[in-house]
Amino acid sequence: MASAGLTPDPERVLADLRELRELTEDEHGAQRLCWTDTWARARRWFDSKLEGLAVERVLDPAGNKWVILHGDDPRSLVLGGHIDSVPNGGWLDGSLGLLAGLEVLRALAARGRPPVTVKVVDWADEEGARFGWGMLGSSAASGTLDLQAIGGLEDRDGNRLPDVLGEYGVEVAKMPGARASLDGVLGYVELHIEQGPVLEDLGLPLAVVRGTVGVERHVVRFTGQAAHAGPTPMDRRREALAASSRLVLGMREMALQAGAKFTAGRCVTRPGVATVVAEEVDLTVDQRHPDAQVLADCLTRAQRLAREIAESERVQCEWSRLWDIEPIAFDHELIEIAQAAVFELSGHAHTMDSGALHDAAEVARAGIPTVMLFVQSLGGLSHAKLEDTREEDLILAVKALASTVERSLAWAADAARTPTPGDGSV
Amino acid sequence: MASAGLTPDPERVLADLRELRELTEDEHGAQRLCWTDTWARARRWFDSKLEGLAVERVLDPAGNKWVILHGDDPRSLVLGGHIDSVPNGGWLDGSLGLLAGLEVLRALAARGRPPVTVKVVDWADEEGARFGWGMLGSSAASGTLDLQAIGGLEDRDGNRLPDVLGEYGVEVAKMPGARASLDGVLGYVELHIEQGPVLEDLGLPLAVVRGTVGVERHVVRFTGQAAHAGPTPMDRRREALAASSRLVLGMREMALQAGAKFTAGRCVTRPGVATVVAEEVDLTVDQRHPDAQVLADCLTRAQRLAREIAESERVQCEWSRLWDIEPIAFDHELIEIAQAAVFELSGHAHTMDSGALHDAAEVARAGIPTVMLFVQSLGGLSHAKLEDTREEDLILAVKALASTVERSLAWAADAARTPTPGDGSV
Repeated sequence: MASAGLTPDPERVLADLRELRELTEDEHGAQRLCWTDTWARARRWFDSKLEGLAVERVLDPAGNKWVILHGDDPRSLVLGGHIDSVPNGGWLDGSLGLLAGLEVLRALAARGRPPVTVKVVDWADEEGARFGWGMLGSSAASGTLDLQAIGGLEDRDGNRLPDVLGEYGVEVAKMPGARASLDGVLGYVELHIEQGPVLEDLGLPLAVVRGTVGVERHVVRFTGQAAHAGPTPMDRRREALAASSRLVLGMREMALQAGAKFTAGRCVTRPGVATVVAEEVDLTVDQRHPDAQVLADCLTRAQRLAREIAESERVQCEWSRLWDIEPIAFDHELIEIAQAAVFELSGHAHTMDSGALHDAAEVARAGIPTVMLFVQSLGGLSHAKLEDTREEDLILAVKALASTVERSLAWAADAARTPTPGDGSV
Repeated sequence: MASAGLTPDPERVLADLRELRELTEDEHGAQRLCWTDTWARARRWFDSKLEGLAVERVLDPAGNKWVILHGDDPRSLVLGGHIDSVPNGGWLDGSLGLLAGLEVLRALAARGRPPVTVKVVDWADEEGARFGWGMLGSSAASGTLDLQAIGGLEDRDGNRLPDVLGEYGVEVAKMPGARASLDGVLGYVELHIEQGPVLEDLGLPLAVVRGTVGVERHVVRFTGQAAHAGPTPMDRRREALAASSRLVLGMREMALQAGAKFTAGRCVTRPGVATVVAEEVDLTVDQRHPDAQVLADCLTRAQRLAREIAESERVQCEWSRLWDIEPIAFDHELIEIAQAAVFELSGHAHTMDSGALHDAAEVARAGIPTVMLFVQSLGGLSHAKLEDTREEDLILAVKALASTVERSLAWAADAARTPTPGDGSV
């Protein structure tokens, strides 16, 4: 452990966060929606914070912004975050990781040339809020981005993704070139707010993240028969909404039993008229679990339940997959390193899974040793103006990131380590 | 009973219905949406059918079209229908009553001056399909129309009701003048397709309608807390859609027990995103029963159930009334008269309640003795191109209407009857 002399200033991170908030928040919250003027302004502001630092800046072909502090070894340790937000978002989601990373970089630069290169990355479009496709930049870097699918995306005003990204210098066809950004990356560390209530319930400021859960996201369509609310006897009806209501409640029960998460966030009824039995219902079903086998079992059981309900309600049932991702485990060694850092600062070394996806999951998918730190969120609120974290916890989080980076640098520099883990083509 | 010589030609009704269908149906069904060109064309076609008949035509201030065959007594018996349809509607809903009424009028005219005046009315905008406000013309005539409310209505393209009606010569402020149309009306008879599967299930062609059910139509809003599908533990969630799902299933059970009808036709989730717990759900709830007390009990029990669910799900619950109407009983004497006519033709005299509302309910509300005849609908289908009725049943229905009118004329002309029931201001 080479901790001597790394002295980040957590108060400066708080000041930076407040400045960014002032610049990009309105009465409804943060408006740093990726591929918009406010987002571009936030990035220019971030650039201004780099003045006087002996760092190189690179914009990769996917729009990810890299700040590079060259070290003795060109192989690198990367600290990640994202300056983009959802519309009406919070002040910490994404930007805490980025600005805490910047502060650690400042402290490293002040101490002199590090043993390996250290990079801070501002991933492009983590939220996917404008085009409905998250982790755009990091998935381009990891090689999992489906170019054909994103080429057809439009925002709610009908603007095409390729046109809009083009305005920001990103050419869809060239995005896979971002894979080179992960060449020679030895490890990846990301600090993020928890966005849930678990740490607050436990009374803990910090946790080390073991990995991200697997997700199965589907839309279930029940099709019954439209019929007039007046003349149609109850026992003659084939009601899609009754079937979908039974599925919502049945799946919740199953999720509680399995320790999984289940969310039905959207329910659309057609024709959607008060006096007509709903003929068609589209229900979104989002299932999550850190264990791939448990997740697969949950999906199988949910599909069986839906079939049974459809049969007893005399309706049709059809599942379409919207999106899925396997559970992604972070690196054992980096988890232990981060636990040591967190324990030293807080007297606890709690680990947990992340129910939300993060750019870190894409980096881990590329075969790069990865770890995340979570800091407590007040009330579990996020993606909202009210998103907040206690000041003392934010300070502790910056220190925990610095300590984790310091320990990871020693680990990365260790001559005993095997050569570069490759170009991410796993 | 003065049945001698009234000889309607049911085949001519079928021919007229087919002609109207040809004129106003496209590949999706009938398009006689009120206050549109196609509807106006249908009305002009109806006018052309009156040529050569010794009748007077009057358009009242609400756009209802009256065809008047003057009798010995200026007081009148009215036969009703409506030529307007829903978009993609059927060929019989509304138009059967109107064109069968026209045929009965032809037969009466051919026989000479009737003892009392006989009118056929084509009610304006029974369906309410363009502005979401049904029985517009008949409620103007009955005096129940809320002028202020309709003045603010817009169609889905943002066209204001007063402007659109103005194009068809109807001035909203003058619509209450249509109440004079019901002056001196002694009785009202309307033939309509059942629009449900009950008569088909019973194997009967015809029924006499006892009255229309009462309706309580509300929107129930459940408000929980939006939360991220990933980080939020299941037991910490306040899911509006879970509450609404429980209400849908609970109310269905209650309706089955009470012999009432319950329909939840529209469910809207907000924010309506697959990865976010639904914070707000608006659920439409339509309850129907022919007995006012049972209906009131159903509403009370539903509201109690919703409160209990809201409490156990830790969400808020709020009810807003969209619309309601009390059960409306038709006239005992006219029901008996119609039963005699139906029995003579079919060997049965089945009576039933109408689960759907009709212009007849508005007329009955105005204190005018009213009755309806239902003819069987195939598959219970209506408001759809597939809406249909067997040809032999349509023929029987025209005969039943003629026989009911003939018997009602005798009843109306009965010198023992009390004077005019007034101007409908009940």
